[in-house]
Amino acid sequence: MGETINVTVWNEYRHEKEHEEVRKLYPHGIHRVIADYLNSQEGIKADTATLDEPEHGLTEEVLSRTDVLIWWGHMAHDQVEDAVVDRVQKRVLEGMGLIVLHSGHFSKIFRRILGTNCSLKWREEAEKERLWNLAPTHPITRGIGEYIELPNTEMYGERFDIPEPDRLIFVSWFEGGEVFRSGCVWERGHGRIFYFRPGHETYPIFYNEQIMTVITNAARWAHTGMTLPDNCPNSKPLEKLSPKSVDFGSAGVVQSREDIG
Amino acid sequence: MGETINVTVWNEYRHEKEHEEVRKLYPHGIHRVIADYLNSQEGIKADTATLDEPEHGLTEEVLSRTDVLIWWGHMAHDQVEDAVVDRVQKRVLEGMGLIVLHSGHFSKIFRRILGTNCSLKWREEAEKERLWNLAPTHPITRGIGEYIELPNTEMYGERFDIPEPDRLIFVSWFEGGEVFRSGCVWERGHGRIFYFRPGHETYPIFYNEQIMTVITNAARWAHTGMTLPDNCPNSKPLEKLSPKSVDFGSAGVVQSREDIG
Amino acid sequence: MGETINVTVWNEYRHEKEHEEVRKLYPHGIHRVIADYLNSQEGIKADTATLDEPEHGLTEEVLSRTDVLIWWGHMAHDQVEDAVVDRVQKRVLEGMGLIVLHSGHFSKIFRRILGTNCSLKWREEAEKERLWNLAPTHPITRGIGEYIELPNTEMYGERFDIPEPDRLIFVSWFEGGEVFRSGCVWERGHGRIFYFRPGHETYPIFYNEQIMTVITNAARWAHTGMTLPDNCPNSKPLEKLSPKSVDFGSAGVVQSREDIG
Amino acid sequence: MGETINVTVWNEYRHEKEHEEVRKLYPHGIHRVIADYLNSQEGIKADTATLDEPEHGLTEEVLSRTDVLIWWGHMAHDQVEDAVVDRVQKRVLEGMGLIVLHSGHFSKIFRRILGTNCSLKWREEAEKERLWNLAPTHPITRGIGEYIELPNTEMYGERFDIPEPDRLIFVSWFEGGEVFRSGCVWERGHGRIFYFRPGHETYPIFYNEQIMTVITNAARWAHTGMTLPDNCPNSKPLEKLSPKSVDFGSAGVVQSREDIG
Repeated sequence: MGETINVTVWNEYRHEKEHEEVRKLYPHGIHRVIADYLNSQEGIKADTATLDEPEHGLTEEVLSRTDVLIWWGHMAHDQVEDAVVDRVQKRVLEGMGLIVLHSGHFSKIFRRILGTNCSLKWREEAEKERLWNLAPTHPITRGIGEYIELPNTEMYGERFDIPEPDRLIFVSWFEGGEVFRSGCVWERGHGRIFYFRPGHETYPIFYNEQIMTVITNAARWAHTGMTLPDNCPNSKPLEKLSPKSVDFGSAGVVQSREDIG
Repeated sequence: MGETINVTVWNEYRHEKEHEEVRKLYPHGIHRVIADYLNSQEGIKADTATLDEPEHGLTEEVLSRTDVLIWWGHMAHDQVEDAVVDRVQKRVLEGMGLIVLHSGHFSKIFRRILGTNCSLKWREEAEKERLWNLAPTHPITRGIGEYIELPNTEMYGERFDIPEPDRLIFVSWFEGGEVFRSGCVWERGHGRIFYFRPGHETYPIFYNEQIMTVITNAARWAHTGMTLPDNCPNSKPLEKLSPKSVDFGSAGVVQSREDIG
Repeated sequence: MGETINVTVWNEYRHEKEHEEVRKLYPHGIHRVIADYLNSQEGIKADTATLDEPEHGLTEEVLSRTDVLIWWGHMAHDQVEDAVVDRVQKRVLEGMGLIVLHSGHFSKIFRRILGTNCSLKWREEAEKERLWNLAPTHPITRGIGEYIELPNTEMYGERFDIPEPDRLIFVSWFEGGEVFRSGCVWERGHGRIFYFRPGHETYPIFYNEQIMTVITNAARWAHTGMTLPDNCPNSKPLEKLSPKSVDFGSAGVVQSREDIG
Repeated sequence: MGETINVTVWNEYRHEKEHEEVRKLYPHGIHRVIADYLNSQEGIKADTATLDEPEHGLTEEVLSRTDVLIWWGHMAHDQVEDAVVDRVQKRVLEGMGLIVLHSGHFSKIFRRILGTNCSLKWREEAEKERLWNLAPTHPITRGIGEYIELPNTEMYGERFDIPEPDRLIFVSWFEGGEVFRSGCVWERGHGRIFYFRPGHETYPIFYNEQIMTVITNAARWAHTGMTLPDNCPNSKPLEKLSPKSVDFGSAGVVQSREDIG
């Protein structure tokens, strides 16, 4: 490996401050639990950023040294400034990885980069979920067996309004009768994107070893190691063009090439 | 068939007013030439809308009765109001078709709905283009043979910064040495999208019978005949849930379902 | 519409002869029930063919006038002759539609045209299945709501060993805890293929109105109306080639063009 | 890296023996040139196998220790035994990588694993080809710039009869006016497949540094490091099934679950 992957874990960080039961579970925030886990893995260095920091903690400088951005948000999607969303989108298109967790499906950045509503069915009844692994050789499922079982989760059900994924990694079964495309990858511009469904604030999802293995695998997979800025160049011909006039056909006009251009 | 397809042809309509050579070619605007052609086809009724009309001619009312929107823009992409872009995006995701022509690759709506930069290489040298038909049974290529040849076109070259198309319909060869994915389809939300490369303002592309056949085919293909509004419902279980408590595992907390959320 | 779609419903037709309980349910065979339903639909003319007929009922002549072939097989996949499989494959690649039902996932033709093992998990416990509709604007789901519920079915579970579908239409939920990609489409050559999971011989699946609606929709969708024979032509250049010699570089050989070819 | 990738380079090895001009270029066979290059790369160990060896050099034992198989064939595709094709297909579906070069598009194994005719247009005029890189962050294009230019190649033109690739890596421009999808990837079963167009026996393609870089990259990418044998298990329910009877509805039969099975 050699190269270190720089991950920034972004968290809205509001539930943990406002709701006692969430604080008990994630006393220093969901971002801290995820970042600590990632920092315990070889070759990954994880920092954090949160909504209430200046520029939501996602300055040009922070993003420029971020290889993979992990996103958790829920109750305050609308408070994320459009200028920051623009900046994150630009970086993804340049080659930064993006991992969107659970309720992040409704974040501005996820809807922006996919172009769809990203809506779904939902229900909070602490029911059982089983995530079936459809892609056992994909880097994201390294070390995961046939399925991941979560005893208590919020339900997300189809139809999930997303572009057809490049690859469908997990499909969930829910006790209450629904299914969901729980692990999906897309490539946009030069960046790799992974959506991963599990992760409610009141269930201890981010203490689950298999869930954290998937997130770690995804961080490694989403790391392209490249930054390719956008451009739209006026290009000279690579082959010699023959002299020609423009035939305007039924429009009744004939011009030389020089008249055009 | 029976059902009429309502098409709205949107044109920026600036080149035609400002440049003499363009006006000679399209005296009443590109939109007029496209709409007239479509109106000559069975089962299609085409109207037009342009940038300088109030709300760019794309009011809620116009969009609500539009089955397929065709988009041509070039020099004034930035003058399209974001509120109108939002409105068009919402309608596409609900099931309206969208056909984006040529320089429309850089329109706000195309970049919005795809989520990428949509940049490319370009050159204006009136060179030859040959669009190879990769999908001879796709409805969009009905009546088109192995390729369409255009004697004089602006060149667009790869890499075209788009999401991998659901289906690649045409690939162009250019005299100067480049290739381009010239006909691409995607589905977003409930709407079908077709990007079609040909169509410069100073070449008589929209007088070409094959080009107009493709656009007509695309209008028929993009017509879903459905409007499915977005929603994100809280859903009751379809199956009986067993009573259960929540095991917070390593977080050291056990809660009853009622304590949660 | 106008044009009639010629469907051939192929059935192995062994269970119905050998097992009393299956015969009670499908006294004249599964193929008869499907063909009768299709013949009651506008614009469709359905015939049947079965394993024990000469050439399995799939002669060159039958296939040449078949627009869409429906396939049900289970206990005698191995008895289908390779020459007939070759013939069916050839016709699909030329533009014939193919609809494969239920246990047909293990038929020679399905594995041949997809290239994979097409294996899966299974269980016969008459459990409940719910097929979620992921593609409400796709022609195959016309008239189908959010899901189809089947009270008693054989279970098929992931991982289903298929190439990633071009479009995922249905995903099933099973009472016993599994999920399955139950409706999948692919295009191969010029032919459209639909796999549809429901259809066990001992449950009355093919008497279910919604199931038969899907099969009817699929027959319409899979009908391309084209037959495009395969070829691999030696093609003359479309552009003038410049005279040139071949530089064999590090291989140390320079040849004129004439020495090559 | 650590782990060594075991590559087997398979060559038909007939042109080199039968045609003087080919022998001059590849005195020990195309396979030797490719294997020698790969053996000069870190972490790769390449062996060879040819048509005229027993079992074409592809015994169970050889395949079981092959991580990635590279395939070059042209004039003797039909002489490859079906049993060996079966064996290779089985290994690809289990997780072995497969790289098919140039005229290998018509090999039995390529057509088998893709299920299509894999036909195309072709011409031998030593014309110029330019392979445009559409996927600059894909592992296969590491170290390759915007395009690869080959001064003299056989032309392959669209329509190439393949399943839509999972990802389109290269598109070729040809001097004579055609385009071609020259670098395509698919996943089948657990195996990764790359088709790469360049490679004619009378042009020094396999002495080209960029071409060999792509082949090396592809060998690394196609190596999954996994062998997952096929199975189709009868599975016990993961959830408790409720007792139930089968409602045969319009078929007029009601059975208990025990009657079915």
